[in-house]
Amino acid sequence: MNIDFKKLDRAFNPKTVAVVGDKGPGYMWLNGQKTFTGKLYSVQVDPREIEGIKALGVENYPSLLAIPEAIDLVIVAVPKQVAYRILEDCIKKDVAAAHFFTSGFTETETDDGIRLEKMMVDRAKEANFLLIGPNCMGLYNPLVGIRQVPRQPVGFKGPVSFISQSGTHAITFSEEAYLQALEVNKSVSFGNGRVLDAADYLEYFAQDASTRAIGMYIEGTRDGQRFLKTLKKVAEQKPVVIWKGGRTEEGARAIASHTGSLALPMAIWEAAMKQCGAIRVNSLEELVDTLNALMFLSPVYGNRVGIAGGSGGQSVAIADVFSENGLKVPALTKESYDKLASFFVLVGSGCKNPIDPGVNRREIKRIMDILEEDANIDNLVLMTSVTSMFRTTEQLERDAAMLIELRQRTQKPVAVVLGYYAPETSKEVNAFARTLRDHGICLFVSPERGARAIRNALLYHGLRTNK
Amino acid sequence: MNIDFKKLDRAFNPKTVAVVGDKGPGYMWLNGQKTFTGKLYSVQVDPREIEGIKALGVENYPSLLAIPEAIDLVIVAVPKQVAYRILEDCIKKDVAAAHFFTSGFTETETDDGIRLEKMMVDRAKEANFLLIGPNCMGLYNPLVGIRQVPRQPVGFKGPVSFISQSGTHAITFSEEAYLQALEVNKSVSFGNGRVLDAADYLEYFAQDASTRAIGMYIEGTRDGQRFLKTLKKVAEQKPVVIWKGGRTEEGARAIASHTGSLALPMAIWEAAMKQCGAIRVNSLEELVDTLNALMFLSPVYGNRVGIAGGSGGQSVAIADVFSENGLKVPALTKESYDKLASFFVLVGSGCKNPIDPGVNRREIKRIMDILEEDANIDNLVLMTSVTSMFRTTEQLERDAAMLIELRQRTQKPVAVVLGYYAPETSKEVNAFARTLRDHGICLFVSPERGARAIRNALLYHGLRTNK
Repeated sequence: MNIDFKKLDRAFNPKTVAVVGDKGPGYMWLNGQKTFTGKLYSVQVDPREIEGIKALGVENYPSLLAIPEAIDLVIVAVPKQVAYRILEDCIKKDVAAAHFFTSGFTETETDDGIRLEKMMVDRAKEANFLLIGPNCMGLYNPLVGIRQVPRQPVGFKGPVSFISQSGTHAITFSEEAYLQALEVNKSVSFGNGRVLDAADYLEYFAQDASTRAIGMYIEGTRDGQRFLKTLKKVAEQKPVVIWKGGRTEEGARAIASHTGSLALPMAIWEAAMKQCGAIRVNSLEELVDTLNALMFLSPVYGNRVGIAGGSGGQSVAIADVFSENGLKVPALTKESYDKLASFFVLVGSGCKNPIDPGVNRREIKRIMDILEEDANIDNLVLMTSVTSMFRTTEQLERDAAMLIELRQRTQKPVAVVLGYYAPETSKEVNAFARTLRDHGICLFVSPERGARAIRNALLYHGLRTNK
Repeated sequence: MNIDFKKLDRAFNPKTVAVVGDKGPGYMWLNGQKTFTGKLYSVQVDPREIEGIKALGVENYPSLLAIPEAIDLVIVAVPKQVAYRILEDCIKKDVAAAHFFTSGFTETETDDGIRLEKMMVDRAKEANFLLIGPNCMGLYNPLVGIRQVPRQPVGFKGPVSFISQSGTHAITFSEEAYLQALEVNKSVSFGNGRVLDAADYLEYFAQDASTRAIGMYIEGTRDGQRFLKTLKKVAEQKPVVIWKGGRTEEGARAIASHTGSLALPMAIWEAAMKQCGAIRVNSLEELVDTLNALMFLSPVYGNRVGIAGGSGGQSVAIADVFSENGLKVPALTKESYDKLASFFVLVGSGCKNPIDPGVNRREIKRIMDILEEDANIDNLVLMTSVTSMFRTTEQLERDAAMLIELRQRTQKPVAVVLGYYAPETSKEVNAFARTLRDHGICLFVSPERGARAIRNALLYHGLRTNK
């Protein structure tokens, strides 16, 4: 089928949205869209539900066709028996696209479900109609306030779009990304993906000017050849980072039960992703951190990291973890040690690499400058802590100012790694990370997460340099 | 030297504490002990500091010898030049032990520091005096309220004691353990460890009846043979879980700069730890989770895990991660599938293993019961979420009641694994974890952390079964 990206663009950036068949007491879809900046309609015929919908302040109509203006996006939450009739209405009204939350189709492996889905898919393809799903959480666009669940944050336009074969992972991605100061541009949970598949969303985000990088959670695809061809083309234009579900025999069995995707051996996937120039990750956290590194760190071209700021024990921990993840924490040049020796007080501190400054913490600017000038060092990391009694808000601000000034005059990537992340400091950490991000510096909440992100950024830039 | 454990016990459970040389504006040591349930004294001669100390409500004396009663623990924060004189006073007053926060000794690799430390060590050994440190954060006992820093929680007596060659890791351990509902019994940061070394603290905690398991962070030891001999003996009595710093070349260089410990090749450490029956971990989080599993899970004797409760995407993620960490998530028996088929509604759900219940979530008790009876399953995991709109407090309470009832009639270990941990839910998660823990059920905040803990518990019990 011929996909009209202008229409899909209308659906991702709607001015009008209609929710069909939402139900109380939660009204999850209407409540999800209460942040929508455009005009929201409801379609519901059950008189008991209509009262609740009116109480929400949403205009209700007995059918899509009765709504007196054009609709960009329809969200369908009706039982599966009614889904085909709603699809017909969507086509008749010429809406831009419809997201079917409705489930009970091929994913149930029942004859009835398979037959119903085939009817809908055939009808949509025949009409060249953009059907999202079924059996999915649909679209999220924080700028216009359309959401997959009511708790997703809104009011910004980030650099990264996300394509997900799991509704939960789509929602969790928006939470974790926001927490790590990585704002989402748009995301889609595409469910059974029978009309629009992963490859279609890849192509859409490739041509979408406001999407600078693409994250994916994928379990499998019906048309592997087309997917990989598309991936190769898109990864040449923008970074694509892929979290593949079903990497193991146990995971593959679970995907059969989840989306029924074909389980290609993981070795084939790995080779294909590498050949396509996509970066592979193994968890949601690694996905978010890697996208963060690709968006905000200066390009990473070397594996040697200079680290300062942690305590003695933290310095040992980060050296081990960075090394275990394929990075180097090398000795500095003799010149650097000479420069350090001119002011470094040795009481309870270490001046190798990592540099545990101890009582020299007030000289952290000089120490970071020495790492910046060191010929053995490709990447700069300040290890710090937000909980510690030694790190007040004022000191964080001073560190931020120091790093921002450093960042403006160095080509070397600059990152901050927390020695420990205490959940009660999440707001302060988030504010600190946002300040840094706005100046091209990434914060990672643990040595392990920092190591993986920097390694993946190096892989990304390395793949491109070697071409 | 001959270590008097009764004396060390007095220091770990003091009735009287004196802080020598604490300074404003922070008065970190006096403020740290403001939760102390016994009598706290200060020793300070600087008139400017004495005012601040009086303002804290602490009695001050011009010298240790002037304090009119016996002292169990002395915390020394004086400059290194004065440290020897304070040691002499401690010996003269026959205090049970002294913790020297004072640094500037062998860790600086300066002649002066090495000489000063040798003087102190020789004097302590000659007098058979229990010197803790120097260059360390000392003792933590939440039951009597003595602390390494003012933010450590108090007012409980947990099952696990911790021995740390890093002050930061000792403090962070107490935070992370508390967060994961694992309460600390006692801990020690032992710094240069020249009079009392890791092996001494191991022996102490081995004979301490209230310590049920021992965690360690260790970088190295001067007497490897004695350490391993002690470890072997202690690990036969209680679980010992060791986080070894300096596993890599980079980490080993960092420990040289931190504690100056000898870097034995990691392969030797690994073989020795295994032979001694200790469990090796690679991070603070793994240390806490493993101790949790050893304290609260039923003994783990098999690697096959039955999992229910996550969404489709979460089920794929946990199956991958458990498998990547050496566990199995096998297919169930035919009997189990027959039982499931009798009530399982297939809409948007999967009934393999993991079981994604979807609309069958209300039947979670029946599902867990089927896993419990399944001959292919050794361990039971409920995958759940505390953030989700679908998991209210009431539902968490219902889940807890269901699991507690299950736990009372099964030999199989029962655990809860979160699909995603949102920091803003940390209080609710902690409360849920505490309720579960009190009934012999462990909560792990991510699939990866759960997988590692269960695998390590299996290793622990496996080592003991094969003997």
